[in-house]
Amino acid sequence: MHIRSTILALSLAAVTAAPAAAIEPSQLAAQARQMFEPLPATMPDQGIDATADMVTLGKMLFFEPRLSRSQLISCNTCHNLATGGADLQATSVGHGWERGGRNAPTVLNAGFHIAQFWDGRAADLAEQAAGPIANPVEMSHSHTDAVATLKTIPGYAAPFAAAFPDADEPITIERMTKAIAAYEQTLTTPDAPFDRFLNGDLTALDATERAGLDAFMTKGCVGCHSGALLGGDQYQPFGLVQAPSDAVRPPEDTGRHQVTGDEADKYLFKVPSLRNVALTPPYFHSGAVWSLGEAVSIMAESQLGMSLTDAEVAEITAFLKTLTGKQPQVDLPVLPASTADTPAPDVTAANATAAEATR
Amino acid sequence: MHIRSTILALSLAAVTAAPAAAIEPSQLAAQARQMFEPLPATMPDQGIDATADMVTLGKMLFFEPRLSRSQLISCNTCHNLATGGADLQATSVGHGWERGGRNAPTVLNAGFHIAQFWDGRAADLAEQAAGPIANPVEMSHSHTDAVATLKTIPGYAAPFAAAFPDADEPITIERMTKAIAAYEQTLTTPDAPFDRFLNGDLTALDATERAGLDAFMTKGCVGCHSGALLGGDQYQPFGLVQAPSDAVRPPEDTGRHQVTGDEADKYLFKVPSLRNVALTPPYFHSGAVWSLGEAVSIMAESQLGMSLTDAEVAEITAFLKTLTGKQPQVDLPVLPASTADTPAPDVTAANATAAEATR
Repeated sequence: MHIRSTILALSLAAVTAAPAAAIEPSQLAAQARQMFEPLPATMPDQGIDATADMVTLGKMLFFEPRLSRSQLISCNTCHNLATGGADLQATSVGHGWERGGRNAPTVLNAGFHIAQFWDGRAADLAEQAAGPIANPVEMSHSHTDAVATLKTIPGYAAPFAAAFPDADEPITIERMTKAIAAYEQTLTTPDAPFDRFLNGDLTALDATERAGLDAFMTKGCVGCHSGALLGGDQYQPFGLVQAPSDAVRPPEDTGRHQVTGDEADKYLFKVPSLRNVALTPPYFHSGAVWSLGEAVSIMAESQLGMSLTDAEVAEITAFLKTLTGKQPQVDLPVLPASTADTPAPDVTAANATAAEATR
Repeated sequence: MHIRSTILALSLAAVTAAPAAAIEPSQLAAQARQMFEPLPATMPDQGIDATADMVTLGKMLFFEPRLSRSQLISCNTCHNLATGGADLQATSVGHGWERGGRNAPTVLNAGFHIAQFWDGRAADLAEQAAGPIANPVEMSHSHTDAVATLKTIPGYAAPFAAAFPDADEPITIERMTKAIAAYEQTLTTPDAPFDRFLNGDLTALDATERAGLDAFMTKGCVGCHSGALLGGDQYQPFGLVQAPSDAVRPPEDTGRHQVTGDEADKYLFKVPSLRNVALTPPYFHSGAVWSLGEAVSIMAESQLGMSLTDAEVAEITAFLKTLTGKQPQVDLPVLPASTADTPAPDVTAANATAAEATR
């Protein structure tokens, strides 16, 4: 509970701060450097000891629709690298046109987060990658069948052997997800305008964006959205001060509580990173809000107990748009051909459990 | 009907030819050059006057899921450039998990064909590209809504203006499909082993592949599958000599007859190009056959009235695998962000007409 108290104190203190117009760019940058860091261009290795060959294989697997039972759905379907690493949907559409339970978080910079999924139920990228393959409303496969399918494709033998040279039988689910994680560790988005501002280029943000940054800090948003990611490093109750509407926070999805069983974790979710947030509407774990400005207003009310003016919303939104970094350059892999031994795709609808949380 | 007679004559003459083993590589290459050509590295312009800016825009649109009502399905969904420009499905899965009527042909080298779709109902790539956007079992959008959606995305203004500098209001369905066609004109796959063989590298095919090429010519396959594409330049009845099974040739899909209404066109389909055929199972307009060898056997029976030995099937299949060319290198585009004005995706299921032909 100490985190909640800290944030409340911060937000109460914040409302007394000086108005945005008074702050010099150099002073604002100095303040911002106390709370934020430029996004590193490289991601820490998550115990993978990633090699270039693992990354090459992982990229193939990230785009590999044969990991799914339908042979239609790849990691990139819901984490589309052409659209900010997410899928533009409220909640994802998977096998049989079934809907998932939560909004797909972007894969960009995901490895910087403390844990994966909105409820943090996977410790790292590799553990996350195993989830959707077997989820009945996502890829609807089984790990066994996904492995068996790849083994029928001769063109995978060499990339697996190169990535895992010490393995007698390299194609396993553990190695597949490890390779996917190795690739995802490359998906960083450095060099956003805000990073350039932090690094001393005071012209990187215009006056409106600077006013938004100032408001972001003084209103208290920074209490949860700080550091290099502006989020991604803690769990917080959605509705810290005031519960948002049931549409925005569906009562049945209790978030981290579903992982820990702890009543104190009800409606706790991982604080999302705001990096590239302008690229990935809709917002929140429910995906119920399509406008970034509306999302800002709801956050102010539910987390900080304050109403923002239209001008403040516009300024903060303008600032958030400066968090769009350089997107990874992706050369689409050429995937090896199926053979007569490869199982045919199975597109029959699954008997999915509707209540299953998927993100 | 004269084409059918020619092919029958050719196939009857062919069975008397010398066995494969007797033919020197140089002699085989000389014979092959009479019937085939190397695939050109560049495609003729289809009246588009394509520019680099049109290609850039067209690539964005090819990968643009917001052309679909669900904002999930792009051209690349069914013509996946990671999997040979097709989708690994018997018939494609589209909006609402509905199935299309025919197997998705590869987009690779499509602009070399005499016409588009299995029944040739679109004259060129641009006309083809307009079809799936509005097809209720594919993208399930309307042209009007697709245009309106793109107009809400500010990041499209500059690419359209660059591609169509003389237009007052550049975003129209005609310009969108023209740009997509401009991009598709770049999707060629030159430099297959067979091209190198035709160009004089006699080591480019091994003995089995050469035996397959010889059989392909002497058995009569070349009667329809000749030229640079080994197909794509004429319509032929599927079941010229003997109708294949109803599973392979569903009786209700009468092919070109559905376009022309001419009884003589019943079960006529565009002869598919065999370029990259090993990458794009399953086979035939029905997508009913998953093994390339089985497809070869069925072709021999239905089109030439002959049964091939297992060895002949294996040789011809080995030859067909030498038609896999250099795949296009694709840098995934970074698509511009939606805005609060962009319509939300609509994933409600369509009332699709099941009988509608889609390829």
